[in-house]
Amino acid sequence: MAHDPLPSWNDCAAKSTIIDFVARVTRAGGPDYVRPAERIATFDNDGTLWCEQPMQVQFFFGLARLEQFAMQVPDLRQRQPFKAFLEHDIRTIRKLGKAGFFEVAATTHAGMTEEDFDRHARNWLASTPHPQLGRPFTELTYRPQKELLSFLRVNGFKAFIVSSGDIDLIRAFAEEIYGVPREQVIGSSVKSRFEVRDERVVLAKLAAIHNFVDQEVKPQNIALHIGRRPIFAFGNSDADLPMLRYARTGPGPRLALLIHHDDADREFAYDRRFKVSPLSKALDKAGDYGITIVSMKRDWRIVFDDGFPPVEAPLAPEAGAPLDKPTRRLPEIH
Amino acid sequence: MAHDPLPSWNDCAAKSTIIDFVARVTRAGGPDYVRPAERIATFDNDGTLWCEQPMQVQFFFGLARLEQFAMQVPDLRQRQPFKAFLEHDIRTIRKLGKAGFFEVAATTHAGMTEEDFDRHARNWLASTPHPQLGRPFTELTYRPQKELLSFLRVNGFKAFIVSSGDIDLIRAFAEEIYGVPREQVIGSSVKSRFEVRDERVVLAKLAAIHNFVDQEVKPQNIALHIGRRPIFAFGNSDADLPMLRYARTGPGPRLALLIHHDDADREFAYDRRFKVSPLSKALDKAGDYGITIVSMKRDWRIVFDDGFPPVEAPLAPEAGAPLDKPTRRLPEIH
Repeated sequence: MAHDPLPSWNDCAAKSTIIDFVARVTRAGGPDYVRPAERIATFDNDGTLWCEQPMQVQFFFGLARLEQFAMQVPDLRQRQPFKAFLEHDIRTIRKLGKAGFFEVAATTHAGMTEEDFDRHARNWLASTPHPQLGRPFTELTYRPQKELLSFLRVNGFKAFIVSSGDIDLIRAFAEEIYGVPREQVIGSSVKSRFEVRDERVVLAKLAAIHNFVDQEVKPQNIALHIGRRPIFAFGNSDADLPMLRYARTGPGPRLALLIHHDDADREFAYDRRFKVSPLSKALDKAGDYGITIVSMKRDWRIVFDDGFPPVEAPLAPEAGAPLDKPTRRLPEIH
Repeated sequence: MAHDPLPSWNDCAAKSTIIDFVARVTRAGGPDYVRPAERIATFDNDGTLWCEQPMQVQFFFGLARLEQFAMQVPDLRQRQPFKAFLEHDIRTIRKLGKAGFFEVAATTHAGMTEEDFDRHARNWLASTPHPQLGRPFTELTYRPQKELLSFLRVNGFKAFIVSSGDIDLIRAFAEEIYGVPREQVIGSSVKSRFEVRDERVVLAKLAAIHNFVDQEVKPQNIALHIGRRPIFAFGNSDADLPMLRYARTGPGPRLALLIHHDDADREFAYDRRFKVSPLSKALDKAGDYGITIVSMKRDWRIVFDDGFPPVEAPLAPEAGAPLDKPTRRLPEIH
């Protein structure tokens, strides 16, 4: 092809499938044409857009805050589950389950306003390297996926992130790093309290979970936030299966993809590492559910994005059309 | 001015304030410039974008469904709160409170999938006239507000609806009628169940409230869905005050507006009709909170939009700029 919109992808079946899908849904007058308003794509974040090993970034973020607290309240070092976090006792942390883990990590920011939290998260991201890879977490995003996000965007798609990670932590970098604006991030969240401080309204975070967005809760929150079934979805774990099946089983053209973490040299091969792997079921069932597997090892020419050269917007077959003009009549009911 | 972007507004202080505000925030290099990603506007729906008298559209929508049920289960006519709905006993219905009222109206659609509900809502909207005004509810939208939505849109704003009404009922017409896509609607919602029916994933509505979006819950849901404090907000009742104050009290240029329902001839004058009016506090406090009051009687040349001529997109001072390109570095922290 004249211009390769996905240069960090090797020429593989998954790449052809993606390019063919986008061509079909954007071909005006074609049998698979989808109008821009319905070109909704959803992406998991941890393990799908950036690295989630040895622990999710959420862990390191919550830990940093816990360490600050532990300086003031040394007693915290003896109390579970904080002890496990402070000692990096992964075994005990895993026993909390994903929701319990999120609860500890997220509620350490209670009392912060939205604005406080955003500043805090940006500062932390700018100053904290990955403990093993030694680079900022925001450089451990997958370059092939950033090309894909860009390719979808110039083809009139709206891409959303749907993550079990903290919604406001993801918002602190998603726009700069992925080009995904804050209102296109769906994630787990804590409750907040409406307060008036010095005549100014603020929303202060509370130490209580509002919503943990995983498994079936992903499609439920897609329905709540977007109100449309995505035509394209990308995940990497069992927790994404409900979202992938939700996207895959609507009418018309559909594409669901799953990353296979099989690249021990360039990232981490961890799909079958644990006795009960949180990735096995998705890999086993992908064929049955019509989900396309992307092998990191085989299909990606480059893994991480160090930012050079910047991911460029590929040429669009057609300009991203604006939202259809409002019309007076409701459409025909079929 | 050469081209009037708000022709259904009389030349009034509110109109000048709006036009001046939009000019300031879009003037590149000016002191009040706001980049497109941050040009978030939020609108209440009932009484702000369309008529909410004698009862909110939600009532008539729930009632129609209850009447279907009552044909099959005649006993329903004797049981409260259904009896009050079926007898249009407004006094008793008001005693339920807004949340209780929503609960009855919304849970009548339990069992429907998202797609069922959308079809059902579109059919109902297309076939049901307003009981007093004899026109479809979708023609009882305010033309000056549709011009305003269009004016904001061409100036790079993203306008969201934030309503206590059913999120999916609003989505069934917001795109066609207001040009507001489904993902820019925030509203009250019921819980859903993830089900696999014939190999197909569906989300079935339950007879249980997930969230009732009113008062302080409006800013809380703006934070959840949008993740940005709006710079522009428009409401009409006490229930909108927290949202208007939230928008008004952020840094930089801000505009919050409140409709005064004082036009008995063309709509309904109902702001002070009840002993404890749900509109009085907002009107009383508007001055203190820096909220601009829009008098329907004085400031609007036309009220309802019958669709002719169609609301046209006014010319933009600058083209709606796309989302800023992702950059490698996180921005400076201030």
